[in-house]
Order: sequence, then structure tokens, then C-alpha cells
Amino acid sequence: MHLDVAVAKTRKYATPESGDTIEMIERPGGGLSFVVVDGQRSGKSAKAISNIVARKAVSLLAEGVRDGAAARAAHDYLYTHRSGKVSATLNIVSVDLESRTLVLSRNNHCPAYVCLDGEFRVFDEPSQPVGVHRGTKPVIHELPLAPGTTVVIFTDGLTSAGERKGKPLDVPELLRELIGRQVTAETLAQTLLNRALIADDQRPADDISILVLSISALDQNDDTRWLKVSMPL
Amino acid sequence: MHLDVAVAKTRKYATPESGDTIEMIERPGGGLSFVVVDGQRSGKSAKAISNIVARKAVSLLAEGVRDGAAARAAHDYLYTHRSGKVSATLNIVSVDLESRTLVLSRNNHCPAYVCLDGEFRVFDEPSQPVGVHRGTKPVIHELPLAPGTTVVIFTDGLTSAGERKGKPLDVPELLRELIGRQVTAETLAQTLLNRALIADDQRPADDISILVLSISALDQNDDTRWLKVSMPL
Repeated sequence: MHLDVAVAKTRKYATPESGDTIEMIERPGGGLSFVVVDGQRSGKSAKAISNIVARKAVSLLAEGVRDGAAARAAHDYLYTHRSGKVSATLNIVSVDLESRTLVLSRNNHCPAYVCLDGEFRVFDEPSQPVGVHRGTKPVIHELPLAPGTTVVIFTDGLTSAGERKGKPLDVPELLRELIGRQVTAETLAQTLLNRALIADDQRPADDISILVLSISALDQNDDTRWLKVSMPL
Repeated sequence: MHLDVAVAKTRKYATPESGDTIEMIERPGGGLSFVVVDGQRSGKSAKAISNIVARKAVSLLAEGVRDGAAARAAHDYLYTHRSGKVSATLNIVSVDLESRTLVLSRNNHCPAYVCLDGEFRVFDEPSQPVGVHRGTKPVIHELPLAPGTTVVIFTDGLTSAGERKGKPLDVPELLRELIGRQVTAETLAQTLLNRALIADDQRPADDISILVLSISALDQNDDTRWLKVSMPL
């Protein structure tokens, strides 16, 4: 099997920086974890919040702490540090090579979408952001690592794109269409982002982060791992 | 300006896992840091060593600790933890948006290569690995963030490729040729890796990790940051 992950991140129009933070870390037992955090409000204050939440989560994951405990700890840390006054959404997506599962941990009102061999699933159980309510827990789903799996998670800048004009982006409809066409993780992320930018007239009303993960049966007979980063300076 | 980074990592033939660890972390003041660690020997024991060194370095960098201090701390940690008995090479490559510099920190006998507007520079000052000698320091170079800059760093599996057959890869010669052709960071990393695999008859004699960073003048008028990961499962 082969894993491909594509993450796109852009910022609210006319703000100096995105308030979203995305980090990736290698799991000590094998595999990778991605942490996606959207700090309350936007700009510098949001970035400071998302940074401490993401940092707490990745540092624990790097030590082998299980995803659910890392999400709870990130919540407790923000809740204690900022007296329950600021919130952040937190998604953790892990490819766990020890248990051979995909672990989706969600503290985000935005749903997570999973497509497994053509079957489209929406994970939209009620979920609280971290930071504001005592004892907040993540909603967790564990799926086998199987070829033909696509996972899409995002921050609310994607679903709110177009709202200004009364024409919000219909993310599930767009996803069903794209997944049917069997595009790559990168093309899927790029298309979602492009549609959001069009809906917002190229001036995003909020920070937008999109993570697409896909597992294919393709065995390239190649042991090489690749990491590629591209950003404006 | 635009930043592109490509990292390729493959493992020694017939070992269960690579002993190299590469992590990326966002700098709290803006920018990114990449940490490349090659643990002594290969396989599981090497991985355990490189994992703790990389984890220590990225967790400090994520808190805003300066690169030189993070490298010293990673050394001290390994030295204390393993009583000076195991070594690892450590490279930190940072794109620091606060100081607008590129910071190259090196605890590795392998040189770092930098090409700046066609001028080829070799950073090969004597440098000690971390973990074995009390008080080890990194060799640090700081360069302005300027278009036309390419940085290439790697672990010693690249330079030792082909040694088994008495025909080691001539990395600087290959780099001069490739940089003259103005290839992308990804193509440069891919070509270096391909040549190493050919030199080793597709059976790498050691773990190989290659990081290529390039800064171009290209302004794509696009605020999007991309992260892409690809690996066999």
C-alpha cells in the first residue's frame, strides 16, 4: 500500500498570518500523526493559541502518548493556561503502523469525511472545541489501514467560504464528485481550495486549512519516503 | 520569494526500518525548521537514538529556542541519557522569518552544500556528531534569505553509496552539474537518490536521507502553503 497526504493552508485576506497551525510528527512506534488546529478569531492572537495547542499535542504524540490522551491533554493545557476563555478546534489524524489503523480524533464542529471503496461516510457527531469546557473529550474513530481509503478534514474557513455572498460552498457534494473521479490527494486538496477561493472572490473570509489523506493499493516497490514543502516567503 | 523543500529518505537494504529521523516544525516567530538525525549503526537501535535526538531538538525549536542552543541541548540530552556511548549526526536547517535568515547548524562529518546565484560553497569545517564528547557544539552558518539559493544536506549513506564496489558517488560533482541545470528541489533530491541507488545496485548499504531547500524569486501571488507526504505502508 501507499500513503499520500496533501495539506493546503491559506490565510484570511488582509491578515498578516494564518491563525491555523498544522504540524506533522513521526510516531515512535511507526507511522505519522498530523495535528490541525484553528485558534479562536484570526491573526496573531489566533496563531498564538493554535501554536500552543498544536505544540502540546505533537510533543505528546512524539513520546508515544495515545491520540485520545494527547487531545485531552492539549485541551486541559489550553483550558488551564487561558482560564477557559479561549477556544480552538483540534483534529488529529494518525497513521498508526503499530495497530495498523487510521485514527481520527476530532474536537471540531466541522465534520470529517471518509470515503472507503466508494462508500462515503460523514463523521459529524456533536464535538466540542478544546479550551472552554471542563473535561472536553475528542470524538474518535479508528479504521483499518486499507487501500481505497480517502480522509478529508478541514477548518471552518472552508465551509464558510461563500457565506458572505449567501452561497456557501457545498463541501460534501463537491467531495462526492471529486472522489468519484479518483483524483490524487493533492488534486483533491487543490480543487477544494480553489473552489473556496472562487466562492470568496479570492479574498478568503477566514483562514482555510485542508488535509487530504489517501491510501492506495499501489505498491511502487520503492522504500523511499518523501516530504515536500512549498510556501511563499 | 518562494520556498521549496524536498526531503527523500530510504533505508538500508534488508533492514526493517531506517535509523534516520527527519522532523519539521513551525518556528513560533515564523518560518520552519528541519531536523535531520542519523543514529549510530542501523535498524531499530539507530532509530531509537535518532528519534530521541530529533524529538529533543524539535520540541525546543517549537518553543522558540535558538538553533545553536537546541543542537547543544540535543547533544547534552543524548550524552547524559546514554553516558556518552552512542553518537548521532544532527543537522538543523531553519528558515527564520524573524531574522530573515537561513540558519544551517551542523553536527555531521558530511559537508553541507550551498549554491548562491551560481556560486558553489562547501561547508565542511571539522564537526563532531552529538552524544559522545562532552561540550560538543554545532558549526553554524547564517545566510540571508535570498532568491537563487539552494541548500543540500544529507546523511552519510549518500556519500558512501558505491563504496562497496570501490566507486563512491561524487556528490559535489553531481551537484555542480545539477544546479547548473536549474532543476527543482524535488528533481535534485530525486536525482541524487537515484544515483546513490544505482551506485549501490538498488540495495542501499546504509540509510540515506537527503534534504534540498531552494529559494526562488518567483512570486506566485498565492498565499497558500503546501505540505505533501508520500510513503509506502
